[in-house]
Amino acid sequence: MENFEFHRPTAYYFGAGRENEAGNIVRALNKHKVLIVFGGSSCVKSGLLSRVQQSLASAGIAYVTKGGVVPNPRADLVYELIDYGRREQVDFVVAVGGGSVIDTAKATAIGIVNDGDFFDFFLKKRQPQDTLGLGVVLTIPAAGSEGSSSAVIQKEIDGHFYKCGLSSCFNVPTFAIMNPEVTKTLPPYQTACGAVDMMAHVMERYFTNTPDVSITDRLCEAVLCSIVETVPRVLREPDNYEARANIMWAGTLAHNDTCGVGREQDWATHALEHQLSAIYDIAHGAGLAVMFPAWMEYTMAHNPMRFAQFATRVFGISMDFEEPKRTAKAGIIALRNFFKSIGMPQNFADIGAREEDIPQMLKLLGVDQHTIGHFVPLNRDDCEAIYKIAARYQG
Amino acid sequence: MENFEFHRPTAYYFGAGRENEAGNIVRALNKHKVLIVFGGSSCVKSGLLSRVQQSLASAGIAYVTKGGVVPNPRADLVYELIDYGRREQVDFVVAVGGGSVIDTAKATAIGIVNDGDFFDFFLKKRQPQDTLGLGVVLTIPAAGSEGSSSAVIQKEIDGHFYKCGLSSCFNVPTFAIMNPEVTKTLPPYQTACGAVDMMAHVMERYFTNTPDVSITDRLCEAVLCSIVETVPRVLREPDNYEARANIMWAGTLAHNDTCGVGREQDWATHALEHQLSAIYDIAHGAGLAVMFPAWMEYTMAHNPMRFAQFATRVFGISMDFEEPKRTAKAGIIALRNFFKSIGMPQNFADIGAREEDIPQMLKLLGVDQHTIGHFVPLNRDDCEAIYKIAARYQG
Repeated sequence: MENFEFHRPTAYYFGAGRENEAGNIVRALNKHKVLIVFGGSSCVKSGLLSRVQQSLASAGIAYVTKGGVVPNPRADLVYELIDYGRREQVDFVVAVGGGSVIDTAKATAIGIVNDGDFFDFFLKKRQPQDTLGLGVVLTIPAAGSEGSSSAVIQKEIDGHFYKCGLSSCFNVPTFAIMNPEVTKTLPPYQTACGAVDMMAHVMERYFTNTPDVSITDRLCEAVLCSIVETVPRVLREPDNYEARANIMWAGTLAHNDTCGVGREQDWATHALEHQLSAIYDIAHGAGLAVMFPAWMEYTMAHNPMRFAQFATRVFGISMDFEEPKRTAKAGIIALRNFFKSIGMPQNFADIGAREEDIPQMLKLLGVDQHTIGHFVPLNRDDCEAIYKIAARYQG
Repeated sequence: MENFEFHRPTAYYFGAGRENEAGNIVRALNKHKVLIVFGGSSCVKSGLLSRVQQSLASAGIAYVTKGGVVPNPRADLVYELIDYGRREQVDFVVAVGGGSVIDTAKATAIGIVNDGDFFDFFLKKRQPQDTLGLGVVLTIPAAGSEGSSSAVIQKEIDGHFYKCGLSSCFNVPTFAIMNPEVTKTLPPYQTACGAVDMMAHVMERYFTNTPDVSITDRLCEAVLCSIVETVPRVLREPDNYEARANIMWAGTLAHNDTCGVGREQDWATHALEHQLSAIYDIAHGAGLAVMFPAWMEYTMAHNPMRFAQFATRVFGISMDFEEPKRTAKAGIIALRNFFKSIGMPQNFADIGAREEDIPQMLKLLGVDQHTIGHFVPLNRDDCEAIYKIAARYQG
């Protein structure tokens, strides 16, 4: 086990109706004026946004509100929010939404109290020194951003969208209010995309070269098994509170590094997928459903036993002791079948991506200058090969 | 899933040599004078205590040091430490040791800044309002106190030792430094007692009446599987860093409520065991090894399928679909065998306990006034029956 630090101080308030405690929670933090950030109209129509606003008002907390976050959140809105928040002299940010809204809020909260261009932190030119602080009222279990130290924002530079991530303790939300009731209206496609996103967060932590971290292995397998057994129920019974609750909490655990401590992580597949999202503006989970099995096929030979462990422990496949590679392959097929069964895309055509755009993806990835991933460090040729697997896969 | 709050802000610093960072960590918290609390001579002889002291000194942090914590920690030392800490005007407490030292430090840190008798909080007469704050340098993976919101202290009242617990956010340590290297010298018996303690922490959260919390089930099973597969390795290869590391982290996860959210927990077995520790001054894990299987035998009929799930998922026992009770029983036998295989006691005789003392145990338990536990609320007759199972078990 590698040396590690684990510090996830987010206070979670989980359960029905808990958005009505937002005001008391913010007041207990000694904050007085909140910038509420949200996305589209769903949290308006559902009444969630107004419940949060009413809760703040009842607790004597002033607020200003700004919507407009889109999936694959954009830097230009963050710049607007930073200016707005500074002008309004807010002392806290609250995100009402899913990963895109939360990441926008994280970048905003950091940007308000750090000089210069906030995107410098995402380009790794310098480190943030502080954050205003943020809280979350979660609506979509997917990105796990409510408990994570990361944020992903994309910025248009010279006609291309660059999706960049920032890992920082300043990204960790102070609180996260999570009410499964508000997720009941999440459509099946978004529910499934969220499930893939969660599984991918775990899998980036599962395919590792660090040996002998069985506690973390078991935790990864636990979260993966739980998602695999719960998502079909959520899709069959979208109003089932228990199923929605299990998925919601699994999504948090998948990305707050509970499943990641003590070892090398990969993150190549996320990098590969970000270029698809950037170019085609697709849902992150949909892109991951296309890319992860392709990545797995390409890297399996590096450590077939690890893929066999995945197959047996997550999908209950019998271990072929004579020929473990068969088990390894069966696990990848099982994952593909699972993604298909929950309505996820399988290849480039399914997401409107084109093989001809691969050179552009590679350029955005920057793999002429560096490799990506750690399980198998991938160079330009590797990435090209993986994109081609994803392009050409025929169920 | 029941509504829940989960707030575990402890900052973990895990790995070889990390006790040398204690000074920087404390300084970053803006603290200036530490009360170091420790137990017996092992952390002195190993040099760990002096490394912590040197690290504090190098960071310009003043400190005073007081040892003397014993297993099954006593209130009288806490009173002394509170007085000492107040006289010395410390602004932080650091525990160097295992669960007993940490719990002593927790009670001290609370007692220093709250008026009146600290034990009132443990008797549930009133609630603490604050804590001075504490950090941990862990030496024994067992109690999970380094990340938990609980502390257990015993006080002699009218000639009897009362072991009482306090659950409070003020108990949660600010940081925990965890170096597996320092656990290599832990003798086999203490290592095994620690493993039982960890497993029991998970099992108190596993045997629940709250249905449909599969994510928490899977996490419990993950931690239990990891302990079961790692402890025999630790006993065979006590100098194996990886094995010690996995066990150390499992112990933390077992009790920081990662395995407990969203549902009813039991805690009867801990209450039953506390009376054994109080009367016979035995290791907590040893008492749990005797009591948990007895509790399981007595309560199995309440929900045989849950015990069958335990048997199949934790011990890999084949499910008997025609007669699940057989699987349930096989799981209890497997647990007994596991405890025996790691050198744990099996019955009262093995721990020097006597059936004649059961009335005293029941009196200390207070089961004339209330039941204990939630999975099956146990009254006086139930507790007596369970103690008798434990007394009379013949391997």
